[in-house]
Amino acid sequence: MPRERSITDELLYESQLHAARFGGPRPVVPAKHLAIVSCMDSRIDVFDLFGLAIGDAHVIRNAGGIVTDDVLRSLVLSQRVLRTREVVLVYHTDCGLQQIREDEFRAHLLAETGEEPPYAFGAFTDVDDAVRHALARVRGHAFLPHRDHVRGFVYVVETGILREVS
Amino acid sequence: MPRERSITDELLYESQLHAARFGGPRPVVPAKHLAIVSCMDSRIDVFDLFGLAIGDAHVIRNAGGIVTDDVLRSLVLSQRVLRTREVVLVYHTDCGLQQIREDEFRAHLLAETGEEPPYAFGAFTDVDDAVRHALARVRGHAFLPHRDHVRGFVYVVETGILREVS
Repeated sequence: MPRERSITDELLYESQLHAARFGGPRPVVPAKHLAIVSCMDSRIDVFDLFGLAIGDAHVIRNAGGIVTDDVLRSLVLSQRVLRTREVVLVYHTDCGLQQIREDEFRAHLLAETGEEPPYAFGAFTDVDDAVRHALARVRGHAFLPHRDHVRGFVYVVETGILREVS
Repeated sequence: MPRERSITDELLYESQLHAARFGGPRPVVPAKHLAIVSCMDSRIDVFDLFGLAIGDAHVIRNAGGIVTDDVLRSLVLSQRVLRTREVVLVYHTDCGLQQIREDEFRAHLLAETGEEPPYAFGAFTDVDDAVRHALARVRGHAFLPHRDHVRGFVYVVETGILREVS
């Protein structure tokens, strides 16, 4: 009996079409010297949102678009090894991190697994405050050589509009 | 005198075109119940690579595609709050993390800033080994309820071909 076909198997078929239309290699240094940090949310296509081409910009994404140590690590490598100079942060409306409460979610995991999760999940309520906090973390990180062009935005998933937070 | 026009300003113009062609809202739960973890590399357009539509999958990206605590945090939220069940890991050839040596890069930062960076950068040499290590981290993370469909790949940036690592 054939193995059940997973979603991943469907993706692999698509990846073969991608390879067939591949436009040729590009340099490892991003052409626009830019790094974008965004939430992992499935409704944000960073390339389409910003009209990017292959090779234009680094794209860093996690739950929330929160500026964790891992995002700072990635930005340091982006700027110091691969010469990017600008940073764009993208949060969004209707974020999954607005659906949970940190203490409740942790208690639920502890009850189910018997262990404390070894990280904070980053639940938040006000998305504009979250962007401002993220901006402050990037601008205050001494290991980043380029901190003059760091801007933060909220993508409105209901309308497709991007608005700046200052 | 007008302020110098940054790359970010150009991106904002593109985002207005995006909003003008916006296809309407999608649910917060990814339609394909899938999370993709990939390197931030500018040559990987995850939507194009896998033929994804807006709303299909979570996209988590950092320097290397390394399964850090932050990636595990994001996957736990992806599965537990937003009901994804499969994980795809994408590393790639010609990665920036193969250009540095961890000890040298740390020494360089210490010499320049007078401080020790508070995180490991994750330099690696063999990309297949790196994928296998990443697969093991996801499959061994007890807080993730769905670990039966976790697969790892190397995207060949010179050809556009995706190959599986097992």
